[in-house]
Amino acid sequence: MTLDDCRRLDAEDPLAALRDRFMLPEGVIYLDGNSLGVLPKTAPARIAEVVAKEWGEGLIRSWNSAGWFDLPQRLGDKVARLVGAAPGEVVCTDSTSINLYKVLFAALSQVLLATPDASPQRRVVLSERSNFPTDLYIAESICRERGFTLRLIEADELPAALDQQVAVLMLTHVNYRTGAMHDMKAVTAAAHAVGALTVWDLAHSAGAVPVALNDSEADFAIGCGYKYLNGGPGAPAFVWVHTRHAGQFTQPLSGWWGHAAPFEFTPHYRPAPGVARYLCGTQPIIALAGLECGLDSVLAAEPFDAGQGPMAALRAKSLALTDTFITLVEQRCAGRFALVTPREHARRGSQVCLALNDGGPGAYAMVQALIARGVIGDFRAGDAQMPDILRFGFTPLYLGFEDVWNAVEHLVQVLDREEWKRPEFNQKLAVT
Amino acid sequence: MTLDDCRRLDAEDPLAALRDRFMLPEGVIYLDGNSLGVLPKTAPARIAEVVAKEWGEGLIRSWNSAGWFDLPQRLGDKVARLVGAAPGEVVCTDSTSINLYKVLFAALSQVLLATPDASPQRRVVLSERSNFPTDLYIAESICRERGFTLRLIEADELPAALDQQVAVLMLTHVNYRTGAMHDMKAVTAAAHAVGALTVWDLAHSAGAVPVALNDSEADFAIGCGYKYLNGGPGAPAFVWVHTRHAGQFTQPLSGWWGHAAPFEFTPHYRPAPGVARYLCGTQPIIALAGLECGLDSVLAAEPFDAGQGPMAALRAKSLALTDTFITLVEQRCAGRFALVTPREHARRGSQVCLALNDGGPGAYAMVQALIARGVIGDFRAGDAQMPDILRFGFTPLYLGFEDVWNAVEHLVQVLDREEWKRPEFNQKLAVT
Repeated sequence: MTLDDCRRLDAEDPLAALRDRFMLPEGVIYLDGNSLGVLPKTAPARIAEVVAKEWGEGLIRSWNSAGWFDLPQRLGDKVARLVGAAPGEVVCTDSTSINLYKVLFAALSQVLLATPDASPQRRVVLSERSNFPTDLYIAESICRERGFTLRLIEADELPAALDQQVAVLMLTHVNYRTGAMHDMKAVTAAAHAVGALTVWDLAHSAGAVPVALNDSEADFAIGCGYKYLNGGPGAPAFVWVHTRHAGQFTQPLSGWWGHAAPFEFTPHYRPAPGVARYLCGTQPIIALAGLECGLDSVLAAEPFDAGQGPMAALRAKSLALTDTFITLVEQRCAGRFALVTPREHARRGSQVCLALNDGGPGAYAMVQALIARGVIGDFRAGDAQMPDILRFGFTPLYLGFEDVWNAVEHLVQVLDREEWKRPEFNQKLAVT
Repeated sequence: MTLDDCRRLDAEDPLAALRDRFMLPEGVIYLDGNSLGVLPKTAPARIAEVVAKEWGEGLIRSWNSAGWFDLPQRLGDKVARLVGAAPGEVVCTDSTSINLYKVLFAALSQVLLATPDASPQRRVVLSERSNFPTDLYIAESICRERGFTLRLIEADELPAALDQQVAVLMLTHVNYRTGAMHDMKAVTAAAHAVGALTVWDLAHSAGAVPVALNDSEADFAIGCGYKYLNGGPGAPAFVWVHTRHAGQFTQPLSGWWGHAAPFEFTPHYRPAPGVARYLCGTQPIIALAGLECGLDSVLAAEPFDAGQGPMAALRAKSLALTDTFITLVEQRCAGRFALVTPREHARRGSQVCLALNDGGPGAYAMVQALIARGVIGDFRAGDAQMPDILRFGFTPLYLGFEDVWNAVEHLVQVLDREEWKRPEFNQKLAVT
């Protein structure tokens, strides 16, 4: 594969023009959209308008005149189009962690109602040891509180671990480290077959890969607004609950925005019908404006789907980008790296992770050396069971194939010139 | 009291120049800063900088280069100066409701540890029936979940209701409806005398009245960023925990940002020391930037305190403003309204609430008629025990005495001309 091949792929790319919708810093090849998406060009003006007009001029009147109260649902309907949900099934609110708490709590409440005696049955929350740590922290906390056990396994142990003890299977659809993707429909069916509910974290899926929540018959899902959805740093997250559960169970963060009649100011809580009960307190309106720009930036790819289903065009390009990266790394970095991300398309998210074949500690410094060259990926530390990795996210909205070529060229130079051995690249930053 | 008296008070007002720090819409007298504070002039540029530079240019590098990770603490230290807390004791994060959940949960966990047998002792959360509804909803939920009873009383029943059954006394320092203020130090001492912990909601106190959390020996407190702190619609809230508890108990929303070593990505949760464990997921960075501008806008009054303690200058002007409003309403609206807010300074927050003496339903329409004239206050519906009220917040940072005169003049005209009887002012808005 050559630079000319990459340029040819760019010339043939139907999504190439979408790049103009984003503010990309000069000299940067951004392979970290899986951590923080880039700024849509519409966002500065829209956010400025919300600040100056809606807050500054409208003040409290903007609750009505600017439609603040409906924002969580209005944005939720946009998310729904990206994750195989229907209008009215998603709300944008709070953080991913807090939304996970809500849905996991609701799911376990359902289980406790169905099996009220403290039998040994149905008292396990099953997840992956390599799940995103904060998901495990939240699950750990709820399990302790509600008398459940958190059982952590490797992905390949999943079929054997799904038994009658499992109350909830809590998985991240695309693994944050490896980029490995679960078959949501098959795994959900397997969980349901043993009577377990499913909670899916879509942090690395929404806007990155096709997700079919309703078609998969999933039970609960949450996801992040600031990764592939380009909503801005710390943008509100989202929550989806299957309609068969949405009006059935309550979550304990029962604030005014999730009340059936929030402006009656009654002293007792009565949950709103449907997913609206997953709202709690007042949401950051300015941050929601940023998120809406991000959602629109992803939905701009919809016209290219050509009837192939949501995310079809983005998915096709994403796979082509990650294929290209894998091919070029294997071709040009001659055995230096092991591919941690699955090669099989059906099991790959929109990122590629590499581990060093020499078992040495260079991964962190290599990432720093790349960042100094403007190629921004990130490093994730390993442990006794997982290697250190270099992690690269590929966002088809604003990345081209020549970017991939150039990123690999920089990697080759970092290796050939042993730049990563420089002391400045081996100093740990506060936030990694 | 005359218009000239009001103009003289403005001329003598040491804080008058602070008004220039805010964007006030033309023709508006804003008496709703207790619901949503106005826009500080610094906020549009600062927010634009965070969007274009920190998000757009810095991207993920801004976690280090722009200090995103320290924002909750950095802003918390500014809040601390306004509520009688020390640096390092406050973090800005999430919503008021969610922070209440955290501290109430932590407080009850402490009680359950101290009295692990399911004795009838210490299983009551005591609060006011007229507390802000969302606080009651959150308490209702936690009580059900953890085996406690929520007991609601009127404020004057408080001394008698504080008994050995009370685990936690949860109060809003300044009542959102009436503007009545508790004596935090005395009430906390009374609660401690029966072995109860205290949780204080400072939503209508922070930036509005002097608060002395440490001097009062309070246990837990939370508060709102978008009312008197001018942080912008839905700005992040704050949480304070007394140092004697801060490192002792965990709250269940155990996300990565509250982990002792958040970048080690370990599968098990280990809470950070101190109040940092009350952080959970990734915070809305753009919203935090707005909040910082708001906090700075309040701290701009600090130089005028003249050694009288935090909030001294703002408090003096606030009382003069509400005194003026009360005097003018009583002088000019001849018996039409009853004063719901306490007349006694020590018991009054920074707002004044009026109820109609005729017992009629006109309060809603009067507020709408005033809003149409540019005098923005709000309406809060009553019930069998509480009258409908017209609620007016007075923010000494950007209100003058002539504003108060003009507001009352408008009210007089609304009454004299019976404007409030017009059909358009009697149509209910979606959000009230």
